[in-house]
Amino acid sequence: MPYKISIIGAGNVAWHLAKALDAAGHTLFEVYSRNPNHAAQLAQPYRAFAVNEVRLLKDDIDILLVCVSDDGIKEVAEQLKHRKFLIAHTGGAVDMNVLEGTSAYYGVFYPLQTLSAGKPVNFFDVPLCIEGNNKAAEMQLKALADTISNNVQYITTEQRRYLHLAAVFANNFSNAMYVSAAKILEAQGLDFKLLRPLIKETAEKIQALSTQTAQTGPAKRHDTTTLQKHLDLLPNGSDEEKIYKLLSEIISGRY
Amino acid sequence: MPYKISIIGAGNVAWHLAKALDAAGHTLFEVYSRNPNHAAQLAQPYRAFAVNEVRLLKDDIDILLVCVSDDGIKEVAEQLKHRKFLIAHTGGAVDMNVLEGTSAYYGVFYPLQTLSAGKPVNFFDVPLCIEGNNKAAEMQLKALADTISNNVQYITTEQRRYLHLAAVFANNFSNAMYVSAAKILEAQGLDFKLLRPLIKETAEKIQALSTQTAQTGPAKRHDTTTLQKHLDLLPNGSDEEKIYKLLSEIISGRY
Repeated sequence: MPYKISIIGAGNVAWHLAKALDAAGHTLFEVYSRNPNHAAQLAQPYRAFAVNEVRLLKDDIDILLVCVSDDGIKEVAEQLKHRKFLIAHTGGAVDMNVLEGTSAYYGVFYPLQTLSAGKPVNFFDVPLCIEGNNKAAEMQLKALADTISNNVQYITTEQRRYLHLAAVFANNFSNAMYVSAAKILEAQGLDFKLLRPLIKETAEKIQALSTQTAQTGPAKRHDTTTLQKHLDLLPNGSDEEKIYKLLSEIISGRY
Repeated sequence: MPYKISIIGAGNVAWHLAKALDAAGHTLFEVYSRNPNHAAQLAQPYRAFAVNEVRLLKDDIDILLVCVSDDGIKEVAEQLKHRKFLIAHTGGAVDMNVLEGTSAYYGVFYPLQTLSAGKPVNFFDVPLCIEGNNKAAEMQLKALADTISNNVQYITTEQRRYLHLAAVFANNFSNAMYVSAAKILEAQGLDFKLLRPLIKETAEKIQALSTQTAQTGPAKRHDTTTLQKHLDLLPNGSDEEKIYKLLSEIISGRY
């Protein structure tokens, strides 16, 4: 069943969701963003309306998705009182309850994926974590989620806290390792491209193997000669030396 | 031009190289491993001979690949004196010179990839880093490498030290982040599978974007509320708390 949906926010999450929802046959009705140009840009390809104020969002819709930054969700919630439609936010680290009082039906619609502007993702593979304040909210969120993802999960606010934390390790911190690797190579005039197949395969392995089985390297082997050789290459007190020492100690301790 | 090749070692690198070399039309002639069963197992599908001692490896071959652990390369080199064929080792963290005296032609043939038993990789995408002690050695290594990879690179011993170090960050340390994420989820009874699409996409993004551009997360945004929420979830003094503190500080400092 196609829904009539409005979106608050015009960032990466809003951009990717609008695309997936439109492709699934839903109607994007109105878009609000603090920045009117961003709202207009997101609305335009879907022939939706750009709205100037949260308070002006019309009531004859089925679902409102609040796709703004974690801090912004509270601010938006304060401007939405006793609405007639289902309201869900997409924040990973924000409790469902922040939406209390905005509607009789509210919840969370959290796509567990890293979304960047202009980098399309296959939404059907993205785990969509949903939570509703009551059964009716939950059922409608599930019905909506099923139209754009094959991987819909009921996740409580409490579970989502840990899921979001784990996602920081899996994504933000892994990417920080890539940044360090790039810094090491660039200082030697070596091309980061050399590491791309390795990075891809590292993530591929984990699709089938357990994380513990997939671990390799000198720290796991307790190969102190190589560990020392590596430390000798890193400038004293550099970020990379700190990371190398801490992670080698932790990996060694795991095996 | 197909070569006649013998291999020392029967671990993951030997296993993957033997497969790629055979597929490219080369002849695997003899295999030596400290463990005779492993040598026999690797040799058998290619109708190669398993050999009991390094000294017994025959001289009528073109190339000998030393695919043993970093520490093992030196040990093997001591048993190879004045041979008639090109000898190359596959170690990422070992100098080319360790092979001095084994032959007039020696070098390095280092596949920059994480290789696990039973997990096939497309060798044509693997960067093969080669180095030779003279022009003839280098040319033969290049000719060999070109038959199994589309990504052959001349890398000096000095460059390879940094490349190997960067690979530890890109692979070993990224995987350590996956292990931490898995630990956090398992403690909550959540399935690690939830994170697999995120991990895949994190590595995919870096195939096109720069590492700095691809960085996201609360530390980059200096979102101290979320950083504190996350720290509150991590047990005091745990490995994950140490990693979280150090990496958030480093990521914040980068932006």
